[in-house]
Formats: sequence, C-alpha cells, structure tokens
Amino acid sequence: MNVLIVHAHPESQSFTAALRDQAVSTLRAQGHQVQVSDLYAMSWNPLASAADFCERENPDYLVYALEQRLGAKKHSLAADIQQELDKLLWADLLILNFPLYWFSAPAILKGWIDRVLVSGVCYGGKRFYDQGGLAGKRALVTVTLGGREHMFGEGAIHGPLEDMLRPILRGTLAYVGMQVLPPFVAWHVPYISQEARQALLDSYHERLQSLSDDLPLQFPKLAQFDDRLYPL
Amino acid sequence: MNVLIVHAHPESQSFTAALRDQAVSTLRAQGHQVQVSDLYAMSWNPLASAADFCERENPDYLVYALEQRLGAKKHSLAADIQQELDKLLWADLLILNFPLYWFSAPAILKGWIDRVLVSGVCYGGKRFYDQGGLAGKRALVTVTLGGREHMFGEGAIHGPLEDMLRPILRGTLAYVGMQVLPPFVAWHVPYISQEARQALLDSYHERLQSLSDDLPLQFPKLAQFDDRLYPL
Repeated sequence: MNVLIVHAHPESQSFTAALRDQAVSTLRAQGHQVQVSDLYAMSWNPLASAADFCERENPDYLVYALEQRLGAKKHSLAADIQQELDKLLWADLLILNFPLYWFSAPAILKGWIDRVLVSGVCYGGKRFYDQGGLAGKRALVTVTLGGREHMFGEGAIHGPLEDMLRPILRGTLAYVGMQVLPPFVAWHVPYISQEARQALLDSYHERLQSLSDDLPLQFPKLAQFDDRLYPL
Repeated sequence: MNVLIVHAHPESQSFTAALRDQAVSTLRAQGHQVQVSDLYAMSWNPLASAADFCERENPDYLVYALEQRLGAKKHSLAADIQQELDKLLWADLLILNFPLYWFSAPAILKGWIDRVLVSGVCYGGKRFYDQGGLAGKRALVTVTLGGREHMFGEGAIHGPLEDMLRPILRGTLAYVGMQVLPPFVAWHVPYISQEARQALLDSYHERLQSLSDDLPLQFPKLAQFDDRLYPL
C-alpha cells in the first residue's frame, strides 16, 4: 500500500509530529511505502491564486476551479501543486495529521486542500461522493486537541466531533470519492502526562496495524439522487 | 454601529467582491462606520507560527495558544495580528465574506481566524460560547457558492448548509461569544445571469437594512453544564 501523510504543525517537536512518526514507522514495518508532506517544513504556500496557473483559460477574470481543470489537462499547474497532486494520486491511503484549530484544519492544511484537490482530477461535473475522482483510495484524519472526550458527543457541550469535522470528512474527503475511516483522536494533549501520551501512541500503532478491518463512514451515493441531484 | 468586513477572494472583480461593496454602501448609508480587511489585497499571512510572537513564554517549544495569551498581555503580538485584533475589538458587527471552498473558508480566511482570534482576549479558560471574550458583538457569514439551494437541507445531497458551516458558526463565532446571525447565501453564483446577480445584491441590501430584526442562531450556554463541562 502507498501512504501519503500530510502533516501540519508549527512545532517540530509536537505530539502531533510524534503521531506522524508513529504512523511512518508502523506502516513501513508492515511493508507499506510512505511519503510525508510536512507542510510547515516545506514552507507550503496555502493561498489559492492566479499564480497557481502557468497558462490561463481567462487571464482577465479568475474562476479558480475552471483554471484548475485547464491546468490539469495541459499540465500547466504550478510545480508545487503538481508535486502534491502526484503524491496524492500515487497514494492508496491519505492521512491528514493535524492539531484541531477552531474545530477544523490549520490554514496551511486548508490551503493544501484548496490547491491540491484539483477540479477535473479529484472531482468535477457529476464526479463526486462515491463517483469522485479519487474513488478507490482511503483517508484517515488524525487529530490532536485540547478538549476532553466528554465535551464531545450527543448532548455534550460541543456536540459530536464528527459533526464539527463534517466539512473535512464529508465535504472534502468523501466528496472526492475516498473511503473515509473513523478519525483517530488524541484528546486533551497539551495537559496529559508522558505516560498518557505514550498510551495514545501505542493505541495509534494498534489502530494502524488493523486499518484494513476498519469500516468506513457512510455518506450519500449519487444513485440515490436524480440527474438534477434531487433525492429519488 | 462599527462594522468590520473580512473579505477573502482571489479575484478582485468577483461577485463576492460585489457583495462586499454592497455591504459597505448599504451600511454606510445607514450611518454605520465600516472597515474592510481585504485579505488577498493585504497579502495577509495565514500561517500560525512562532514568528507571531515578539517575546516567547517558552522559546524552545511552541504552544500557540499559550504564546497568544502572553502576547496579548504584553502587547508583543506580531503587528499584523494586533492590527486585525484592534479592528475586531472595535467592531460591533463582524461580517465574514467569502466563497465556499470545500464547504468552508478559503485558507487565507482560515488563517485570519487562526491568528487573530487570540486566546486570552477572544476566549480562554471558561470564557467561551455565551461567556466568550467577544460577547455583545454580532457576526454574519456571507458566502457565495456554486451549488444550488436544493442540494442543501435535510435529505438533500449535501445535508443542511448550516451543518457544513458548523465549525465556523458554532465552533468559531459562537465559541468566542458572538451572536451569530443566519448566514446570507448566494447560490449557484458562477452559473447565473447578471439579472440574477443583481437580484442577489438587492436581497443582500434588504437583509442588511433589517439586520437588527434578525434572530441569532441558538447555541449552548455554559450555565447548562457543570464545572467540568458535563451537561447538568
């Protein structure tokens, strides 16, 4: 299996980085190929802009998704985007590894999503959800956060974490066709002991070893909707 | 009323920019003070990093929220953050004006949220939701998107738009204590006629004129939870 880990944390010694390293070693020990995109270390540019296209369909007015489609077809996407897109297309499993900032991805990772999930390749027209361009691949979201587990769930103060993660799990990863596995969540990280951190790393190791047994989350299928996307 | 509009679109002639201009003129005509942060025009840096702090509580290991608290107290936040934070504290109403990218904010706006909603000022400890540091202010999310209205809602292919916007509406704006108004949504923008666009601008104008009548969305209140944030 080919695995791409996209890692986004501004502190290179963070526990989130330890989770990344755990994933690399566990997955390599199982014989998988692993690449890591360490966005802060790469000085990844998160800004979707006109500079992302060497050629333009319309040089006077930027419609980002339209230029992505042309760029993908003519291989005229900016080099940093093409490089990440190549890694993504190579991967059977994508792991997004990040600390929860405002119940979502840090901007640098959002900018990887904005720029790399290129229209015309990853989705486009009626190619989304189970018909998405990345169908056949799997995705795992691995997050660290300050909150405790009892603050999430039905009736809890923040509601279910999966609901907060909906734009990523459903609106992004499932949208492009990936099978989205239940997230791996490291709770309360800034406040716990070294022992508790080690226990989290151990449980991540176990989870990664049995990933093929995981049942993916369920999302809509296009066959449940008509041509205009009204429910059948 | 003081209004801050945070605008994030890579195309200066976009319809999203027309909505920004509509808000400026409608609100000024009503006698309100309006400031605009045009993030692309400002070349806003969206990356949360160690460079955001002129002094460090711990120079060897970055805990971002911890350094925010020190930075706010000692006025040692990076100048670009302090400038935006001052605008935010000045404002009675915050408008986030952006195109929906992956059912959420473009990275440049996510980076404004990550860096400007500073711990110790906007939230911290038990100061969140109705007890948040920005209690008393109101917030409006104005989004443009390609999808049609019938693709959102209960049973629709993408589910309710408010559910996709949960990390922004609840996890960010309500979290820091703001009264969050129902979003203004411009559907199907890339595909509609000039007349339909004008109709959207007109309806935005009307909405903004009667904003004080709007009932804010409902979110949890801290009094519904005990000291450890278990539901009472």
